[in-house]
Amino acid sequence: MDESSNHQSTGSMPYLIGISQILGVAALAVTGTWMSHYRGGFSWSGPLQFNVHPLCMVLGMVFLCGDSLLVYRVFRHETKRATKILHGVLHIMALIISLIGIIAVFQFHKSSSIPDMYSLHSWVGITTFTLYLLQWILGFIMFFVPGVGFAYRTKFKPLHSFFGASLLVAAIASCLLGITEKLLFSIPKDYSKMVPEGILANSLGLLLVAFGAVVVYVLTREEWRRPPLPEEQALSIDFKTLTEGESPTEP
Amino acid sequence: MDESSNHQSTGSMPYLIGISQILGVAALAVTGTWMSHYRGGFSWSGPLQFNVHPLCMVLGMVFLCGDSLLVYRVFRHETKRATKILHGVLHIMALIISLIGIIAVFQFHKSSSIPDMYSLHSWVGITTFTLYLLQWILGFIMFFVPGVGFAYRTKFKPLHSFFGASLLVAAIASCLLGITEKLLFSIPKDYSKMVPEGILANSLGLLLVAFGAVVVYVLTREEWRRPPLPEEQALSIDFKTLTEGESPTEP
Repeated sequence: MDESSNHQSTGSMPYLIGISQILGVAALAVTGTWMSHYRGGFSWSGPLQFNVHPLCMVLGMVFLCGDSLLVYRVFRHETKRATKILHGVLHIMALIISLIGIIAVFQFHKSSSIPDMYSLHSWVGITTFTLYLLQWILGFIMFFVPGVGFAYRTKFKPLHSFFGASLLVAAIASCLLGITEKLLFSIPKDYSKMVPEGILANSLGLLLVAFGAVVVYVLTREEWRRPPLPEEQALSIDFKTLTEGESPTEP
Repeated sequence: MDESSNHQSTGSMPYLIGISQILGVAALAVTGTWMSHYRGGFSWSGPLQFNVHPLCMVLGMVFLCGDSLLVYRVFRHETKRATKILHGVLHIMALIISLIGIIAVFQFHKSSSIPDMYSLHSWVGITTFTLYLLQWILGFIMFFVPGVGFAYRTKFKPLHSFFGASLLVAAIASCLLGITEKLLFSIPKDYSKMVPEGILANSLGLLLVAFGAVVVYVLTREEWRRPPLPEEQALSIDFKTLTEGESPTEP
């Protein structure tokens, strides 16, 4: 057992993590270019306030959330405590930035007398963000608050991981819906003529899908999971012995 | 080893599979209702040909593909051969039905002089379908054509499973984009007034997301994977011994 967990081959993982970062930064650059070059740039008041929304959502709910999930793969040989703190810090940044993005679009709707929450983009988006908030709070209570039993944490962990990856995918789906809506509102006649803005925004959609696919692929490879450090392993085996009455030497 | 694989608890899996079927059938019913009640029904010619597209894509690329992935969990105690054939038959149906759906929309575009392949929906959709075709062909060669080595199959299987689930998710994302496009084309002024058609179509989007989430959750639970039958286990252990020089009695 010790042998198999210590002798882990990371194979193509470093390359895939590199590719994910290139895709993520490219998605951010394309969002920024779209909003600044074609949609007039950014401002916290007036019609340009809308443009803050896509940039913040791609940065917060996609890029930072995705990177936060990768922390346990990238820093596999650091202590659990250090990786956990980094995971938490990235999620604090993601939460604040996406909250700014959500406030931006609601304020823009209000000042422009546009109704809220009627579109599929808004339904999927707000459901994703609400569940993200719930995941955030539950994750904080289960993994950061001291005193929560090891058995509870172990039981909750796979659910937390599944919902983490699912919410990243839902956030990306929500971005794709936002891209489609924005294009059909901004260039309703020109979109079908394959104008550069349409091609750029469609490419952003594919970049986001590719980012999500690579991140989820890395996360779901069983052999690339963070191996427990020797001292963690000893602890968890002792605990297993205590709770389940198993011998630590058994497979 | 034998003990742990035979003594598998399926826990909430039967309920989740039941829920997935309710969600899938509801999504199909809502698509049918939307197209027949609000969009004039179905026909293989004229403007109503479009309506064949959403129904076929939801049935083929989402419902049948999703169910095909669940086959190995639902029929966990049948022989591998029987489950494999059912998996293949469901995918043949999915392929034919979604091909009809794609032909329908291209023919409708042609007869109505609407340009093809400019939208993000079409980009994500055609990429998903092309990769699905590739996955179909590779899967057929690797798992149905006799003579492919056990070692190759074992290596290819996790990739095949990952891409299967990913393509289901991509198909659902593509459906969401299609729903948004269709609503903004059909009821551009009324959508923001929360008319019943908008609410119905948005609900379809949420049903599809819920279907995908439940299916992928069931698929990714390690403890619910199909346990090898005793005769398969003996075979694979023998093979492992031959190829890796390991003792079959070792964990």
